Amino acid sequence: MKLDLLHGRVEMAHGSGGRAMANLIEGLFAKALGNAYLAQGDDGAVLPPPSGRLVMSTDSHVVSPLFFPGGDIGSLAVHGTVNDVAVMGAKPLYLSAAFILEEGLPLADLLRIVESMARAAADAGVLIVTGDTKVVEKGKGDGVFITTTGVGVLREGLELSGNRAGPGDVVLLSGSIGEHGMAILSRREGLNFDSPIVSDSAPLNGLVEAMLDTGAELRALRDPTRGGLATTLNELAKQSGVGMRIEEAAVPVEPVVVAACEFLGLDPFYIANEGKLVALCAPQDADRLLAAMRAQPLGKKAAIIGEVVEDRHGFVQMTTRLGGRRILDWLSGEPLPRIC
Amino acid sequence: MKLDLLHGRVEMAHGSGGRAMANLIEGLFAKALGNAYLAQGDDGAVLPPPSGRLVMSTDSHVVSPLFFPGGDIGSLAVHGTVNDVAVMGAKPLYLSAAFILEEGLPLADLLRIVESMARAAADAGVLIVTGDTKVVEKGKGDGVFITTTGVGVLREGLELSGNRAGPGDVVLLSGSIGEHGMAILSRREGLNFDSPIVSDSAPLNGLVEAMLDTGAELRALRDPTRGGLATTLNELAKQSGVGMRIEEAAVPVEPVVVAACEFLGLDPFYIANEGKLVALCAPQDADRLLAAMRAQPLGKKAAIIGEVVEDRHGFVQMTTRLGGRRILDWLSGEPLPRIC
Repeated sequence: MKLDLLHGRVEMAHGSGGRAMANLIEGLFAKALGNAYLAQGDDGAVLPPPSGRLVMSTDSHVVSPLFFPGGDIGSLAVHGTVNDVAVMGAKPLYLSAAFILEEGLPLADLLRIVESMARAAADAGVLIVTGDTKVVEKGKGDGVFITTTGVGVLREGLELSGNRAGPGDVVLLSGSIGEHGMAILSRREGLNFDSPIVSDSAPLNGLVEAMLDTGAELRALRDPTRGGLATTLNELAKQSGVGMRIEEAAVPVEPVVVAACEFLGLDPFYIANEGKLVALCAPQDADRLLAAMRAQPLGKKAAIIGEVVEDRHGFVQMTTRLGGRRILDWLSGEPLPRIC
Repeated sequence: MKLDLLHGRVEMAHGSGGRAMANLIEGLFAKALGNAYLAQGDDGAVLPPPSGRLVMSTDSHVVSPLFFPGGDIGSLAVHGTVNDVAVMGAKPLYLSAAFILEEGLPLADLLRIVESMARAAADAGVLIVTGDTKVVEKGKGDGVFITTTGVGVLREGLELSGNRAGPGDVVLLSGSIGEHGMAILSRREGLNFDSPIVSDSAPLNGLVEAMLDTGAELRALRDPTRGGLATTLNELAKQSGVGMRIEEAAVPVEPVVVAACEFLGLDPFYIANEGKLVALCAPQDADRLLAAMRAQPLGKKAAIIGEVVEDRHGFVQMTTRLGGRRILDWLSGEPLPRIC
């Protein structure tokens, strides 16, 4: 029953709780992810007392294909949850990782994914402290699904929430939109552009920390993933009971993303991002915050893209490049399934 | 786009991040699970500073069928993680719940499952504070998979781990074995017995608390789920580098489970439990601990089933009812896939 990491495949026995599963955990997961917490080998991890309020966030990842330009389901599963914890204003510390494997998945693919998770976690400065493995029959899953849950500690005194925005607040965006979704879609549809579109998947906790260090009066941070920037702005507007005015020309979009979106009849405002954030900030601190964002590798193209206005209907309006005005509505329907 | 909870089904759009997903979250998840943390509506939950060391544990649940005598995937997903946190010696406080839904799942089934989770969580005294929903295409999942992650707080000074057992320690079991696995298998195979086998799925945190309150010198607790009692004993023996001697006659098994196992050629020692625990305890405290367990509803049939012995090979030996001796090995192969 030795694990053949080169040619072996996931078998039902790998989820049985018996010796085969123990072999998989020791020979693959522990080897790639190993740290003192995982090595405890108990049903969970014992972690030191945290120093403040906790933030907890979870995400299942079902992205298809499993590997794409700029990442894979493993790095995405780390970034997705690190970012959700970070945009709550917390320092992400620990992740759990639960795997649902489809019978027949090549172990070499699984190893590649888990090694990618390990790199992403090290990069983001978080530890994967506990995990789980289940196996489902061929045709009852799709390769691998990964659910990560993150725990972090919130800065003392910090209060960020989507419901804290008020008229006059400034809307900032950390960089260009649409890369993650268009990278997945291009790979899935076999589209080739002159320069390939690379996912922006990245851990935002460093950027967030730099932003918090400015002491700027932040209301909320949010990462515009599924549903894209348009949906995230609508969520924030709804939570706070305000409207927004956005300048289309101020929102950075890479030319290759513009081209791909035009070709496919998609709007980059509705395409998922995995390494960007939206910030709502008091007007007097916006320039200072923007400068701090631009000083970070993941915030180089940060921009002020609009402002919060009074509007009990919660409409997000956009001034277009041509000077017209349109409502930027929630995403409806399903342009891009299984993007994360 | 109103949610039809009676006749509606899960559609790809419910995972899109847009309006349909917001409707599903508001109209189903928030309604069934609602609490102040979920109502924050942000990417995660902000939780009060915990008062000690944290315990974190995660489990994906892929049980098939989704509904079975004694529970469903929803209650199981709560009990599974509550128990993993509890057997670490911690008081479970918060759960996250991440759903991977298969396109076409009846919303009425989903509602039933989520309501069952809500009841199980209330019962166990834990809060479901944050969640996630993804949707995969028909044929790429199997109804619903639920990953729960639990966070709890460990008692001050308590040190439990599978690696702390030593020769002379007493092995206790909280009740009869094999009910969960045989309930699932009977339902799956359409077997009918005179009295149906009902899963033992239950939250163990109350029992654990009562056990800790005795002050007995506990080494480790573990819930014998996948792989059954035999595999759990082997895991503990291996972690501590010791052997065990178990008395078969001391291990409670319900007659209907014995009958079903005989009929199917299965051994109850390898069948999953979801409401039982194994305790390793210093010999001088075993009787006191046993009495405390028996005073609890989930420990009425608790028993001393054996002892820890010196054995650097980590063998678990069992004295059979007939007085013979056999090695109780790890589960190998796959008698019962997707049991939890």
